[in-house]
Amino acid sequence: MQLDIGKPILDKNDRLAEENRELLDAHGIFMLNILASPGSGKTSTILATIEALRSKYSFAVIEGDLASKVDSEKIKAAGIPCVQINTGGICHLESNMIANALKAFDLDSIDILLVENVGNLVCTTDFYLGENARAVILSVPEGHDKPVKYPIIFQEADAVVLNKVDVIDYFDFNEREFRASLSQINPAAPIFPISATKGTGIKAWTGWLDSIVIETRG
Amino acid sequence: MQLDIGKPILDKNDRLAEENRELLDAHGIFMLNILASPGSGKTSTILATIEALRSKYSFAVIEGDLASKVDSEKIKAAGIPCVQINTGGICHLESNMIANALKAFDLDSIDILLVENVGNLVCTTDFYLGENARAVILSVPEGHDKPVKYPIIFQEADAVVLNKVDVIDYFDFNEREFRASLSQINPAAPIFPISATKGTGIKAWTGWLDSIVIETRG
Repeated sequence: MQLDIGKPILDKNDRLAEENRELLDAHGIFMLNILASPGSGKTSTILATIEALRSKYSFAVIEGDLASKVDSEKIKAAGIPCVQINTGGICHLESNMIANALKAFDLDSIDILLVENVGNLVCTTDFYLGENARAVILSVPEGHDKPVKYPIIFQEADAVVLNKVDVIDYFDFNEREFRASLSQINPAAPIFPISATKGTGIKAWTGWLDSIVIETRG
Repeated sequence: MQLDIGKPILDKNDRLAEENRELLDAHGIFMLNILASPGSGKTSTILATIEALRSKYSFAVIEGDLASKVDSEKIKAAGIPCVQINTGGICHLESNMIANALKAFDLDSIDILLVENVGNLVCTTDFYLGENARAVILSVPEGHDKPVKYPIIFQEADAVVLNKVDVIDYFDFNEREFRASLSQINPAAPIFPISATKGTGIKAWTGWLDSIVIETRG
């Protein structure tokens, strides 16, 4: 037996997202929405991304979390402006949370705003925040079948980062199947295998980010 | 800056959960709600659990998933009755979904019903389904800081399974910190380090499950 259950549309969130987008455009800020499971390495990837591009761009970060400040403390320790949003149990960021967080930044001094969404391959998908692009991070230990099991989030990604490739030999991760399923679900999204902690692949990933920032900001 | 956002109460779900519980009690069925991130090994743990206890109990499984049938096909291949619930994008199972799924089983022939919730450390927490107990699975590659970052789900666990301990040497997983934070958040919950695919620790975990099933069914 199989039961299928629908989902309402999120009009109000989308209207506020457009307002966020207009505000960011007015200040020449590129916003990247970063989506992943808990423990896939979002914060490490953000830190490696900033390290690679900080001589060219000034960064700010919004950290979405249920309750803790673990991640925002790491970002602040790297000298990057960061707002922590504690959702109090809500499984995703919404546009109004971003709108409030933006008030805390000096927008004229930011080129790239990285948004670390709540660790979640499901609910984060439906909430457009006004971002210019979305990156989904999957880590090797989570398994190659995740695009098949969580198709919507991968469908809407502008890029897919495969993190923790340094441990790929210790897992039953079939990279060919992973790429084959992604090419069915989202053939346009480039895939960047990286190790955020070891530095592998960061140049290709940040080269792509640099290129879409240039393209978007004109 | 830090923003904190509240959450409404889920009365209707809880009422239906009580109805599920009464129905299950009437048939002497013990229901375990299994919560975890994507890729932490829920299905492998279910298969290992059934294998260890199937000479004593008859099992059935409800598989919650966004869209695919990958997991339920694995369960059916093991000869176990299984209902697949596709939530169509909803990030958790709800009591009404369980109530519908129960209609598909021969309830008199089931001792233990294992419910694999949608892969999610956030939304699944708030939805009581009528279960007798909850187990949260965390896998080593997700990191030892997850109880601190996702406290609510760990707070409400009756047992915590730490899966993929066979690869612990390849990760920066501090088991002492993991246990210390869990003992703060939920000192009563036993912790079972296992490798579902290698069989490590399954005897201790299923011994615990057996003991609460006996205690509950009287």
